[in-house]
Amino acid sequence: MKNTGTIVLEKFDSKILKGNPLGDPSEREFPVYLPPSYGKTDNKFPAVFLISGFTGKGIMQLNESFLSENIKQRLDRLISEKKMKEMIVVMPDCITKYGGSQFINSEATGNYEDYIIKELVPFIDRKYKTINSSNSRAICGKSSGGYGSVVLAMRNPDVFGLMCSTAGDMCFEYCYMPDFPKFITDIEHYGKGHKAVENFIKKELNYNQPKPRSFHNIINTIGMASCYSPNMKGAKAKGYNFDLPFDLHTGELDVKVFERWLKHDPVRMVNKYAGNLKKLKLIYLDAGIKDEFNLHIGARIFCDKLKQKKIKFIHEEFNDGHMSVQYRYDRTFQLISDAL
Amino acid sequence: MKNTGTIVLEKFDSKILKGNPLGDPSEREFPVYLPPSYGKTDNKFPAVFLISGFTGKGIMQLNESFLSENIKQRLDRLISEKKMKEMIVVMPDCITKYGGSQFINSEATGNYEDYIIKELVPFIDRKYKTINSSNSRAICGKSSGGYGSVVLAMRNPDVFGLMCSTAGDMCFEYCYMPDFPKFITDIEHYGKGHKAVENFIKKELNYNQPKPRSFHNIINTIGMASCYSPNMKGAKAKGYNFDLPFDLHTGELDVKVFERWLKHDPVRMVNKYAGNLKKLKLIYLDAGIKDEFNLHIGARIFCDKLKQKKIKFIHEEFNDGHMSVQYRYDRTFQLISDAL
Amino acid sequence: MKNTGTIVLEKFDSKILKGNPLGDPSEREFPVYLPPSYGKTDNKFPAVFLISGFTGKGIMQLNESFLSENIKQRLDRLISEKKMKEMIVVMPDCITKYGGSQFINSEATGNYEDYIIKELVPFIDRKYKTINSSNSRAICGKSSGGYGSVVLAMRNPDVFGLMCSTAGDMCFEYCYMPDFPKFITDIEHYGKGHKAVENFIKKELNYNQPKPRSFHNIINTIGMASCYSPNMKGAKAKGYNFDLPFDLHTGELDVKVFERWLKHDPVRMVNKYAGNLKKLKLIYLDAGIKDEFNLHIGARIFCDKLKQKKIKFIHEEFNDGHMSVQYRYDRTFQLISDAL
Amino acid sequence: MKNTGTIVLEKFDSKILKGNPLGDPSEREFPVYLPPSYGKTDNKFPAVFLISGFTGKGIMQLNESFLSENIKQRLDRLISEKKMKEMIVVMPDCITKYGGSQFINSEATGNYEDYIIKELVPFIDRKYKTINSSNSRAICGKSSGGYGSVVLAMRNPDVFGLMCSTAGDMCFEYCYMPDFPKFITDIEHYGKGHKAVENFIKKELNYNQPKPRSFHNIINTIGMASCYSPNMKGAKAKGYNFDLPFDLHTGELDVKVFERWLKHDPVRMVNKYAGNLKKLKLIYLDAGIKDEFNLHIGARIFCDKLKQKKIKFIHEEFNDGHMSVQYRYDRTFQLISDAL
Repeated sequence: MKNTGTIVLEKFDSKILKGNPLGDPSEREFPVYLPPSYGKTDNKFPAVFLISGFTGKGIMQLNESFLSENIKQRLDRLISEKKMKEMIVVMPDCITKYGGSQFINSEATGNYEDYIIKELVPFIDRKYKTINSSNSRAICGKSSGGYGSVVLAMRNPDVFGLMCSTAGDMCFEYCYMPDFPKFITDIEHYGKGHKAVENFIKKELNYNQPKPRSFHNIINTIGMASCYSPNMKGAKAKGYNFDLPFDLHTGELDVKVFERWLKHDPVRMVNKYAGNLKKLKLIYLDAGIKDEFNLHIGARIFCDKLKQKKIKFIHEEFNDGHMSVQYRYDRTFQLISDAL
Repeated sequence: MKNTGTIVLEKFDSKILKGNPLGDPSEREFPVYLPPSYGKTDNKFPAVFLISGFTGKGIMQLNESFLSENIKQRLDRLISEKKMKEMIVVMPDCITKYGGSQFINSEATGNYEDYIIKELVPFIDRKYKTINSSNSRAICGKSSGGYGSVVLAMRNPDVFGLMCSTAGDMCFEYCYMPDFPKFITDIEHYGKGHKAVENFIKKELNYNQPKPRSFHNIINTIGMASCYSPNMKGAKAKGYNFDLPFDLHTGELDVKVFERWLKHDPVRMVNKYAGNLKKLKLIYLDAGIKDEFNLHIGARIFCDKLKQKKIKFIHEEFNDGHMSVQYRYDRTFQLISDAL
Repeated sequence: MKNTGTIVLEKFDSKILKGNPLGDPSEREFPVYLPPSYGKTDNKFPAVFLISGFTGKGIMQLNESFLSENIKQRLDRLISEKKMKEMIVVMPDCITKYGGSQFINSEATGNYEDYIIKELVPFIDRKYKTINSSNSRAICGKSSGGYGSVVLAMRNPDVFGLMCSTAGDMCFEYCYMPDFPKFITDIEHYGKGHKAVENFIKKELNYNQPKPRSFHNIINTIGMASCYSPNMKGAKAKGYNFDLPFDLHTGELDVKVFERWLKHDPVRMVNKYAGNLKKLKLIYLDAGIKDEFNLHIGARIFCDKLKQKKIKFIHEEFNDGHMSVQYRYDRTFQLISDAL
Repeated sequence: MKNTGTIVLEKFDSKILKGNPLGDPSEREFPVYLPPSYGKTDNKFPAVFLISGFTGKGIMQLNESFLSENIKQRLDRLISEKKMKEMIVVMPDCITKYGGSQFINSEATGNYEDYIIKELVPFIDRKYKTINSSNSRAICGKSSGGYGSVVLAMRNPDVFGLMCSTAGDMCFEYCYMPDFPKFITDIEHYGKGHKAVENFIKKELNYNQPKPRSFHNIINTIGMASCYSPNMKGAKAKGYNFDLPFDLHTGELDVKVFERWLKHDPVRMVNKYAGNLKKLKLIYLDAGIKDEFNLHIGARIFCDKLKQKKIKFIHEEFNDGHMSVQYRYDRTFQLISDAL
């Protein structure tokens, strides 16, 4: 392929993330894809913010694997096959010690929504030849990246005019709650009560290997709690700065904490942000009908609520599960391209 | 073993079940275990009602399998080893077309609580040499049989003075709700909306084989809905006589219907029946810490609520899952025996 | 159903099994199904010997389960629907301490082939109104029962003129060998070398519960070794009376022992018994294309070898796995009925 | 970390791979790790060839994932913590259209053993400051990379004086044969006989997504056949240039073809290469005791054969399965470092 794009490994030191409570770096490295003709003329390009799933960050989009394209190979092909227009694709790093920020502001992790909206978008517009307009700026991603896309576009339609979510986290009682009882059983290997959670954080949140089988289930719940139910005041007594939405011994749902989570549930945010959602040029949601986290159900419910509010959207389902569905980016980029 | 008990295959034609809405037989056959010395003297015996799990009925307690005792072999051994006193054990048939009655009254299935309390208990007392007193009458079972034991003892402490539940259904958001999104995906193979449910009932609820993999998940939700949220008025329009606790297309939880379920959730019934629970001579709950339906969590929550009400109970956990735990009956019968 | 058959629980004390090396009872109880019109006229009936899978015995064919017929219900229905002629169905008990005899003679377990051929068949012919002719006597079963049917008919065409095997054990490198490396890993929980095997036998081959997850894999290999590679001389030194076909520490295949197994592999016995196989009135093999033990592959190979020898057979495949395929008995009994 | 190594993305155009039968590129890009003090003095360094597992290539060692180091991060840490000496680490690309070359010469894929021994090793020695001696040159890897390490060191002790294998393919009847019956069932979705295999190759061996569940099982068997039983003459008739070790319809083992495989089985090569193995400075094998491909069994058998030949080796087992065991590289590099 003679005519290919370029990956720039960009570095940016954030003021907003400086001194964040988890001690995560404020300076992050992340890839920016510049399309083949970038810099060869004076043309400006639309910008797509492709955000990663839980435990992921932009640079992982460059990972290689057998018979599966990484993001550069994929974008080069889609552009060369004229399936999408040339665009700049920005792949931020919003990971945290607890696996991810869900791209929102949280006292417990840092203000990642502000980081994207107030720092990264302007930085990209300053440094690269973007078309600086919400109508030419998209946000997309899968899993937690789909969640972030829905929520950030919903709250910032003046920044992101197009939004695509593949298997985005939503309908929390179906996608998160089934993990709660397993958390109770798993965390008991680390001790009792708050101490068990503190021990898990100390013992497992590092590069030591191997990780136990329960690792992903536990970190997922901790990650979400750090985003949805931060508790800085309780941090001293508990040893961690968030509230879990259940009793740590019996597992009984803590309705008050879970209601704080539900305020962040996209299917419950549609009403509040209906006006914003109407402004969007593109709303696209898809999910696999075998999604292990039931996110196809979440997408159906979300779209049903859009329909009730007479908001336009595109909704698709595909015959697959939650993992290894990067090939759905083809559809995302084509739809963004068509809608621009 | 020279000195063994006897199984009588008892038959009883119920007035209460006559004309039940699912067309299930009113006359049921069920085994009664009479201990070795029964009938050899004038002695009277305590009576234990051992009720079955979902899709089960008393007669299945006699099934044979490799290196695992059936109920007769088990009781004979426990008695001969002096681990339990001699008792009469009654194993009712409360199965329905939809897999089970949960041993409660429902417009959609029949009045199975009344059947046990008002017909079976008196019938057994009339026919067999029981000690006719709640202090000498126990109810026990596992899974749905555990559920029925908890609920029937809670509501009828004058009938059943002792209650044991192994992995009984409770905390419905953990034990049933995770199945709802799967139901949505699975039922779509049978059509759309109510028609799909109607088709499933017609096509699968018979002796034709083989059953699809999704069979157990679907029948479980249908079975519970027939017990917890019957709807006779809707039956004509829908083709079935209950309400499902979610939208049949999107899967969104139907909060009103689910609240009808929650009224039957033991962890939510403790407050109302605290006075009755205090009357019981024995309350025993156990569950495996790997219970696939999270029923160990339910048992913890239930016991925590008993504790708050200062009601005495015994709570145990064991290192196993939900299935093939008949060996826990040893513990049940020993505890009943000790408490008599 | 007014016109139904009868189950007789037959008892027979075997001279051949008397004093068998595993101490299993010589007197066994087993069900005999007598068809509806049996005894009402002077009619004689064909006899089918339905033999059980590993860890099974005839009486388990009477076990009840939800929406699945036991053998009596199945035969009554097939006869009343005129899908099969009236027959006597004998369901022997050939189980052993190690899970099963494969229905063959073994120094380590007992002479179960002789028991069936020389004792049970004559006993049934003496006691019941059978048509005493190989052309009216069938043998059938699934899994190990399928294996036994193939082998006994192959070696005794003068006794069994019809044979049906559903997912019968064959092609041992595909159905048994994959378990050998797992055996090595699993048995190490019981100690080292022969001692580990001896400990497993002492600790697990009893009615104590619960059994570990590895139980079925270990007992399966032990069971087969007791049938295919008995070793009475080694019993004292080893603590058990058979040879395992691999090194107990490294797991390396013991080719000499495995060759003793292969002498019992139906796909390797066709040549030797081709003459006998030609005498059979019915040879039927089927298996599910998802059979977890690859027995559909075994059936294909077996049938391919019959074809090479120009022996007539019927071969079918169905869309299912190895377990819960009792519904295939419908096909078996229809084919036997048609062939009589 | 101030003092870190450097990754050079090296390119090399091979004469040996030029015109290879699968049309794979002769020019490959692969990473070379240069330790922190490389180039700062005149020091020469030992060289380690780290070869990849099936469907992998060197560049994938740089993939990033949550809480798991990539090879650069790992080597930097091990060196800075003084757990290993400074070394050059070369990570070749020996992947093929069929998933991998096993690092051996094959008419069907290309001469990858020659490529490493005759081209890559001299190229690295020419271009980088290596200590050009077998005593300072190691080969290591996991899974197929472990296989390649064992085989290449065994055959080229003058090139590689140290060898480490983590879960290397060996004892083919345990690691490959269990896949054969599954291959038969899976390949039938693509047609019948050779045509099915040809169709699979055409339809699936490309970047189209998603891949079916059976993909990995099929490609694994095809990949191994292309390495162990090439057949260029049959290619025209069959549509592919290798022999499968079983009949494509019945699944029956093709003993002649499988014997060609077994000539490449390390546990069967020890005798022939015992003299060479004795020359090696380090032989290290490990595997997880839950290895899904039974490679812990293979390693035990291999080591047992070394012992019989009085060849020195280090053998370890760890409590894990086959996947995500990169952390074992820590042990590999420490042992190489100690042995240098």
